[in-house]
Amino acid sequence: MSEVIENKRPVSWRTAITKNEDGDIHIRGYNLEDMISSLSFPAAIFLVLKGELPSDAEEKMMNAIFVSCIDAGIAPPSVGAARKVFSGGNSFNSSVAAGIMSFGDYHGGAIEQSAKFLLELLEGKDTSNIPQLAEETVRTYLAEKKRFLGLGHKIHTVDPRTTRLINVAEKAGFGGKHLTFMLEVAKQYKIQKPEKNLPLNVDGAIAAIICDMGFDWKLGKAFFIIARTPGLCAHIHEEWSREKPFRRLEHNQHIYDGVDDRKLDK
Amino acid sequence: MSEVIENKRPVSWRTAITKNEDGDIHIRGYNLEDMISSLSFPAAIFLVLKGELPSDAEEKMMNAIFVSCIDAGIAPPSVGAARKVFSGGNSFNSSVAAGIMSFGDYHGGAIEQSAKFLLELLEGKDTSNIPQLAEETVRTYLAEKKRFLGLGHKIHTVDPRTTRLINVAEKAGFGGKHLTFMLEVAKQYKIQKPEKNLPLNVDGAIAAIICDMGFDWKLGKAFFIIARTPGLCAHIHEEWSREKPFRRLEHNQHIYDGVDDRKLDK
Amino acid sequence: MSEVIENKRPVSWRTAITKNEDGDIHIRGYNLEDMISSLSFPAAIFLVLKGELPSDAEEKMMNAIFVSCIDAGIAPPSVGAARKVFSGGNSFNSSVAAGIMSFGDYHGGAIEQSAKFLLELLEGKDTSNIPQLAEETVRTYLAEKKRFLGLGHKIHTVDPRTTRLINVAEKAGFGGKHLTFMLEVAKQYKIQKPEKNLPLNVDGAIAAIICDMGFDWKLGKAFFIIARTPGLCAHIHEEWSREKPFRRLEHNQHIYDGVDDRKLDK
Amino acid sequence: MSEVIENKRPVSWRTAITKNEDGDIHIRGYNLEDMISSLSFPAAIFLVLKGELPSDAEEKMMNAIFVSCIDAGIAPPSVGAARKVFSGGNSFNSSVAAGIMSFGDYHGGAIEQSAKFLLELLEGKDTSNIPQLAEETVRTYLAEKKRFLGLGHKIHTVDPRTTRLINVAEKAGFGGKHLTFMLEVAKQYKIQKPEKNLPLNVDGAIAAIICDMGFDWKLGKAFFIIARTPGLCAHIHEEWSREKPFRRLEHNQHIYDGVDDRKLDK
Repeated sequence: MSEVIENKRPVSWRTAITKNEDGDIHIRGYNLEDMISSLSFPAAIFLVLKGELPSDAEEKMMNAIFVSCIDAGIAPPSVGAARKVFSGGNSFNSSVAAGIMSFGDYHGGAIEQSAKFLLELLEGKDTSNIPQLAEETVRTYLAEKKRFLGLGHKIHTVDPRTTRLINVAEKAGFGGKHLTFMLEVAKQYKIQKPEKNLPLNVDGAIAAIICDMGFDWKLGKAFFIIARTPGLCAHIHEEWSREKPFRRLEHNQHIYDGVDDRKLDK
Repeated sequence: MSEVIENKRPVSWRTAITKNEDGDIHIRGYNLEDMISSLSFPAAIFLVLKGELPSDAEEKMMNAIFVSCIDAGIAPPSVGAARKVFSGGNSFNSSVAAGIMSFGDYHGGAIEQSAKFLLELLEGKDTSNIPQLAEETVRTYLAEKKRFLGLGHKIHTVDPRTTRLINVAEKAGFGGKHLTFMLEVAKQYKIQKPEKNLPLNVDGAIAAIICDMGFDWKLGKAFFIIARTPGLCAHIHEEWSREKPFRRLEHNQHIYDGVDDRKLDK
Repeated sequence: MSEVIENKRPVSWRTAITKNEDGDIHIRGYNLEDMISSLSFPAAIFLVLKGELPSDAEEKMMNAIFVSCIDAGIAPPSVGAARKVFSGGNSFNSSVAAGIMSFGDYHGGAIEQSAKFLLELLEGKDTSNIPQLAEETVRTYLAEKKRFLGLGHKIHTVDPRTTRLINVAEKAGFGGKHLTFMLEVAKQYKIQKPEKNLPLNVDGAIAAIICDMGFDWKLGKAFFIIARTPGLCAHIHEEWSREKPFRRLEHNQHIYDGVDDRKLDK
Repeated sequence: MSEVIENKRPVSWRTAITKNEDGDIHIRGYNLEDMISSLSFPAAIFLVLKGELPSDAEEKMMNAIFVSCIDAGIAPPSVGAARKVFSGGNSFNSSVAAGIMSFGDYHGGAIEQSAKFLLELLEGKDTSNIPQLAEETVRTYLAEKKRFLGLGHKIHTVDPRTTRLINVAEKAGFGGKHLTFMLEVAKQYKIQKPEKNLPLNVDGAIAAIICDMGFDWKLGKAFFIIARTPGLCAHIHEEWSREKPFRRLEHNQHIYDGVDDRKLDK
């Protein structure tokens, strides 16, 4: 009878990531002990996410991507949420979680969005002549007034972090059609629409790089989350080390603009 | 008047981690752009958490620590919680957060506990003769039947991941009093209590290493969280890629053992 | 100068819900102390969400809605996530949060979806003859093979919880065009498509009721969250009271189906 | 063989709260359908948490407790965390969860702490003469300079919300030894230490009431969480309805006080 049940209801949890037999761990087929001796953390991240080891150039890009997003200061909502949760008298891990919960469509979501956009745009396209493809694509986007994801910077006409990522890529000999296309598109916007400031931004650059490394766009947020988690940890540690509990808004930071006092007749 | 308010209520948010002036980012004083070109991710993590750059040996240890904890398979509660949250129809980042919320006293908490224990144990102690200190400490712990944190393994008499971490440390020329002491303590347990299996475990080894690197024990959980986040991301991506929504427990996996049906007279 | 800053940057936090002046609290204009003496919790929930007090009939419907969703047993992913987080050695509130994080598009999201669907469907429509409108709507939906949200039940041909909610509504004299329309639509599906089982389900009924009470569809999830939170609390308390920490999947509950062991040449 | 496995590994999930057989739901033995028709939400909460139906007086107290904590304005960290998470572009339920994650030792934790303290204090004590027991207890606490949990208010010499809760209790004929004792203790502090302002506060009053209702102190946080969740929902709905995404700290709200810019030599 028990077997019948088993036939009807197959094992519900399956994974192709890690085999753990009584503490003997293999990740994507490789012995974790061997990995400790010989892999860098970014190479191990590449392996766990993608299933294969990175090339040297890919490993360098993983490092550069993660460093580029490691922290952006105290102002973003993720840091505020993380510190507020900690200040209520909560655990370190729960506070990190609150920070990560803040990473949505408007906060760290641009890599995923740009990667999806780029993959769909190039899917099935002839990429033998990328400059020409970029030229035509930009012409179409300008004519149809559609937004091209991954371009534009609030202040700079050249995004300095993008420049560095591209430098690392050039030095490492890294780069495929997605990155090439994005750079050509940025060039074309400068030619066809010089009055507008639309440099390749850091999210667009990272998106193109992870597409060239063969990652699924569904992993776009993973890159931001992995990169920024150390920054969140540093902020929570700082909150723990030198701030008092219970971060209430100050009197002069909030107002009530609802209905006036009224009487409850019930 | 406005100044008076400012005097009474100082700026409530301050940080010594990162300066971000309109996108021009300095982390612990260093230009983020320069970091992209020249720092590895583990070195940047060291910097953001500690405020200074790691030595080469420290950078190698950071890599080895993070790799050693990157994933442990599908069975732990963190992976289950993360996949269940995703399966309800929720976002990637919220699912990662649920996994991290699972890392408590019984899950990934041992590094923090061991580091705190070790720092407090050695504080103010004369460490000029560590073997003797270890010999006396173990004698006391055995006599008083107190538990020594960071030792013991469910299966192995030597923890294989610990061995690799120690190998990396030896090759890199890394190691200070905390790691030396822990290794001597493990040796003493083998001598003084040979019938018991109390090898230095991976949490104890990592704890000793981060104490030697000068980290606060309050950052103990940060090491586990940073290390395991890529593993959680891989599991959520796998859930997204090949499982159906809504992970309900199967009929044969749960029972009701409460009161029998009864009538509501109200 | 300070004033200039103030002009440029207005107070960033504003609320029309609650005024709290040094602990003297008014909610939607009413003194919280008076509310304690005279309002039921569901009436207070109505007030805080909507800004006005409920009628007697509305108060009865609030009670019935919340009771109908208070718990559904141990099987849903939210309970599993909440218990797993607790089992890792985490706090009560963090575990409740993990449960609520599981309520997504596929888990407790149907009220929101149905309410949005229903409001958009009836917007601008002439509702003077609801039976006729329902008849035409169902005809169109069947012809165009579109799915009508809020109908259908896996097992029952009549959803028993819906029946009770409708009974409560009838006894209380509650009901407007949305609920009437939904009931007529369900009737029409029975007439026009008798071979299919599409009774008004509990999510569709609640959606219609909250639309009749004038709530924004954006509050659809709030009704489920408020209703189910006590159930989550009961489960976490049960976990705390009688289970051991660390809910790892059993050996026979999971499999590894990834690549075979391989050698790391690096 | 399969049976052997089953013997070794019993069903891992069990519950005495709710029986759900293909959608036929019984909560603590009672048919959920019947509950919809006849129970108020607070009575159903009492049932799901405690296992039995409340008396009329207990039901009134449940209402009063929940109303007393339903919201406290925009200033507390829970509201800030919830709104920040939403502002990053995240879901309603994830934002509610962030608010609940903020409820820690310093935010909504006082009910649990007071209930635990009170139960332990009275355990095994002779309560036949409560005024005398209170008199002696206060004398001891003052002599030993120990803090008595549940007393004290930042502003008021009488906590107005406590007064209302006591009024509701008196009108309903509710009250046992815990509430009586707490009131006597407050009276004694006024007599023995008149210069200090130590009225029974709302957390202490709720703690005493739930102890009198026979609840486990481990459910102390549940009362605050259930009560405040509607308030959090109202705040997130307000954020959704009238605020722009991405709540970044304003320039004048934060400062950097870390090391000066320095050069990366690596």
